[in-house]
Amino acid sequence: MLLTFVHRRTVVNSYFHFITPSGKSSIVQGPPYHYGADFITVYFKSDPEKLQYFLPDPLKVTDGSAVAYVSDFVCTVSENALDAPYEDPAQATYHEAAVGIKCTYKRIPGVYYPFMWVDRDWSLVRGWSLGYSKKLADDIHMTRLHRYIPKVPYYGPGTKLSGYCARHGSRILSISLEITRKGTAKDLVSTPSVYGLRYFPANTEGQKMVNELVEIQKGNAQLGEEIWYGKGEVKLYYSRNEEVARIDPIEPLYGLAYQFGFTNYGSKVLEQFAKS
Amino acid sequence: MLLTFVHRRTVVNSYFHFITPSGKSSIVQGPPYHYGADFITVYFKSDPEKLQYFLPDPLKVTDGSAVAYVSDFVCTVSENALDAPYEDPAQATYHEAAVGIKCTYKRIPGVYYPFMWVDRDWSLVRGWSLGYSKKLADDIHMTRLHRYIPKVPYYGPGTKLSGYCARHGSRILSISLEITRKGTAKDLVSTPSVYGLRYFPANTEGQKMVNELVEIQKGNAQLGEEIWYGKGEVKLYYSRNEEVARIDPIEPLYGLAYQFGFTNYGSKVLEQFAKS
Amino acid sequence: MLLTFVHRRTVVNSYFHFITPSGKSSIVQGPPYHYGADFITVYFKSDPEKLQYFLPDPLKVTDGSAVAYVSDFVCTVSENALDAPYEDPAQATYHEAAVGIKCTYKRIPGVYYPFMWVDRDWSLVRGWSLGYSKKLADDIHMTRLHRYIPKVPYYGPGTKLSGYCARHGSRILSISLEITRKGTAKDLVSTPSVYGLRYFPANTEGQKMVNELVEIQKGNAQLGEEIWYGKGEVKLYYSRNEEVARIDPIEPLYGLAYQFGFTNYGSKVLEQFAKS
Amino acid sequence: MLLTFVHRRTVVNSYFHFITPSGKSSIVQGPPYHYGADFITVYFKSDPEKLQYFLPDPLKVTDGSAVAYVSDFVCTVSENALDAPYEDPAQATYHEAAVGIKCTYKRIPGVYYPFMWVDRDWSLVRGWSLGYSKKLADDIHMTRLHRYIPKVPYYGPGTKLSGYCARHGSRILSISLEITRKGTAKDLVSTPSVYGLRYFPANTEGQKMVNELVEIQKGNAQLGEEIWYGKGEVKLYYSRNEEVARIDPIEPLYGLAYQFGFTNYGSKVLEQFAKS
Repeated sequence: MLLTFVHRRTVVNSYFHFITPSGKSSIVQGPPYHYGADFITVYFKSDPEKLQYFLPDPLKVTDGSAVAYVSDFVCTVSENALDAPYEDPAQATYHEAAVGIKCTYKRIPGVYYPFMWVDRDWSLVRGWSLGYSKKLADDIHMTRLHRYIPKVPYYGPGTKLSGYCARHGSRILSISLEITRKGTAKDLVSTPSVYGLRYFPANTEGQKMVNELVEIQKGNAQLGEEIWYGKGEVKLYYSRNEEVARIDPIEPLYGLAYQFGFTNYGSKVLEQFAKS
Repeated sequence: MLLTFVHRRTVVNSYFHFITPSGKSSIVQGPPYHYGADFITVYFKSDPEKLQYFLPDPLKVTDGSAVAYVSDFVCTVSENALDAPYEDPAQATYHEAAVGIKCTYKRIPGVYYPFMWVDRDWSLVRGWSLGYSKKLADDIHMTRLHRYIPKVPYYGPGTKLSGYCARHGSRILSISLEITRKGTAKDLVSTPSVYGLRYFPANTEGQKMVNELVEIQKGNAQLGEEIWYGKGEVKLYYSRNEEVARIDPIEPLYGLAYQFGFTNYGSKVLEQFAKS
Repeated sequence: MLLTFVHRRTVVNSYFHFITPSGKSSIVQGPPYHYGADFITVYFKSDPEKLQYFLPDPLKVTDGSAVAYVSDFVCTVSENALDAPYEDPAQATYHEAAVGIKCTYKRIPGVYYPFMWVDRDWSLVRGWSLGYSKKLADDIHMTRLHRYIPKVPYYGPGTKLSGYCARHGSRILSISLEITRKGTAKDLVSTPSVYGLRYFPANTEGQKMVNELVEIQKGNAQLGEEIWYGKGEVKLYYSRNEEVARIDPIEPLYGLAYQFGFTNYGSKVLEQFAKS
Repeated sequence: MLLTFVHRRTVVNSYFHFITPSGKSSIVQGPPYHYGADFITVYFKSDPEKLQYFLPDPLKVTDGSAVAYVSDFVCTVSENALDAPYEDPAQATYHEAAVGIKCTYKRIPGVYYPFMWVDRDWSLVRGWSLGYSKKLADDIHMTRLHRYIPKVPYYGPGTKLSGYCARHGSRILSISLEITRKGTAKDLVSTPSVYGLRYFPANTEGQKMVNELVEIQKGNAQLGEEIWYGKGEVKLYYSRNEEVARIDPIEPLYGLAYQFGFTNYGSKVLEQFAKS
């Protein structure tokens, strides 16, 4: 799916910086990307008007449904480098925290994530290229349990999990889950479409900019067998550079812990915006 | 210089993600940006053909002259937030290491930096927007001296300085300088133009991409009074994701330590490339 | 097992800094500690004399057998805080890389780890208190595989794994494993005793110091069901502050990937050394 | 001042882990250490009883005077490695935030720092060895100004400075200063003695422990010429692992920005405590 483009001089294979003829120095390769992740997810409700504030036109908020998660990802670099977890382990794992808003595009339901934090630069730029709105966090941690640790129970009723995300020395988001029972695939809120914004700025007259509402092209969904259901909480914090707490107060519905794998193939453009 | 663009719904003031109507959540604001930095810089020569490999068309290598530096930056967030060093100190300082190649565009001499590493995400994206080819480093350190530390000499003949940059657990670049004498402004190699590449990728048919050769618009140059001249060394390391060592062997000429302030106003487009 | 000691004023419950009457600010609580970890381990041989260099008296090297691993730990804070993975996830996971030397104490076989790197301060001090010789690493990464990631095979013959440890911008140790077959518990080299050195320095006459050869008291061993056997490699790197590469050349024997849980109860003093 | 001690086998020159005969792998060398630092300091008052809670016996609180600072340090590794800023820049700079309490030992006035956070492991252990009560912070940032940055005023009346310290994703302490005028050496609160606690724990019967009230031996004080005086603020944050906010409410008096150099020679034992 990587578009090779013809430079005047030569075919340049780089997907992104560093741009070289070989393409080997690119901070990230083009899609498809394959992912496997552990999620602590909490579904919640907020005031639809407050949520609408964060949706790019023409996405429309629905009933105030939203979601927050903290997650631990394993991923590939590209279709041609499936050995990345071995060759360069620092290019194959990252953490991600996000807040998503249920919405519709021309009546087609989906989710849009106005806030996504990750802890590796290549995940940042890969996200922007696909249409995910990302910043780097300085610190994302989440509860991990280990099957063989003595005394500490593994996943099951009564187990408590949490995660947080911080940036510039301030906590932005905390979530927690107290498991009450096994869940099922039906507990995952179905979001047939994932909308995003491919946005790259211009700063001077004469420059091109990119401003595209997209639908991220997903496939290969694989939901882990163990799904855990329970009481979820989400805390949002005010800080100078983050507006996420504008959606307070929120009403948590329930939380889940589960594993999920999928593939991102690229992004289909729905609309292209121009500056006036 | 920030281009406000009209979203369908509303005027959106965000320069970049997170895109919100207020613009307050943007990872970085639009230019101009003001900078003050401490540099350890080494000028060197390499094979012009090897250097040309890293230049985007139609930039032309000159005589094999090049430069490497490690630096410690203080900067502003935007013209409207000159208080950033106070309000959000984590948004106002960063380290940067880079390798630049002397080149010409239509016979106008300048420098192009195919490799630039920084340690904050907002510096990364600000750089990309201006046309600088950046990656995050996991670790950039350089010698700092302190005027009031007992026993350790301050800058002067005999003082030794060094710096390095590492990513994904591997050293990429080391530079060192042994000061021999005071230098002058003439020891700084003049690079009237700084060229860059504004490049944002497309990954699917129908998406726009940006591929612009630019000249970064600079001003307010302020060179610090103390310039130190000496013997410089540069080491480049091979690693899986970095091609910088392709320019080896290199011949170091001399090094400098100095302070420099300047403003980046934006980038003037020289050429727009399209995919074939 | 925490020794409460009577301060003149009050009973102080702190195990370590910050020392307060409540003990709540202690960077780490006293043992026992419970652990569950994923290991990539490579057994190797080196020159016994070179290994002996790193053993405190009166430990005796055996046949040159040694081990290196990179690992991913989940742990408890103390017996009274088994909910740490939930309450404070940053206090419950860390990475560890180490090199251990097979040795004997009064003919009792065991292992001593002269080099251990971790990435959290509380693991550092907890280790020192138990008798493990630790430094902080700036970057420890290891391959993680995910059961639900598309296209990327999970553990099995042919799978390749790696890990590394870096400090001060330099790689110190890399290990890799190419799995060839299932392993068994017998492939784990038995080390009935783990020896350590509780060492806390004095810097001025009149200060006490601690210099105790100890045997770490372990229990609750739980070996994961899946053990993977294969071809292992270990690379040691020279750097200014690390002498580990003195044991080169080494001859790798084989490697394992496995999960292991255990408890550290404290350390039994074998010998107390005094300064002359 | 480094005490070489005779191991049975050999003279071991290591000050701390990694303990080797050469001493080269030690995470830190013995004192003296030389320091040069930039401070943002705020003097404040709190309830003497609340402050007394954090003082080890027999230190006595005075009138509720206390101090908080965030600072940026340059230092040496040891008397024998004054070239550390060149040879290993990552071993020569760190940040430190602290809260100190004015107190007396047998009527001799001084200061004791129950809370000190740093961002390098070697500073952590060096501090413990001297008697400073330290933890690692994940993030310490403070305002730096640059003499040559355009538009942004350098130190002077009206300039605002701030700093913060965070750990485990939570802000612990913030301080800020708005400069109103030049200060003088007399504005620095004189603390003739700096008291500390050399404390290394035992976790099992039979182990030695260290619990010594000490006076840190200082010298070579060099106060920078420019001292800036102004309105200071201190914010303390509650978090699970930090009790510092117990001293709230506090009343800030004034703040200073200044540069200071000094030497730590070691620690003189005042009292040795034993467990009961």
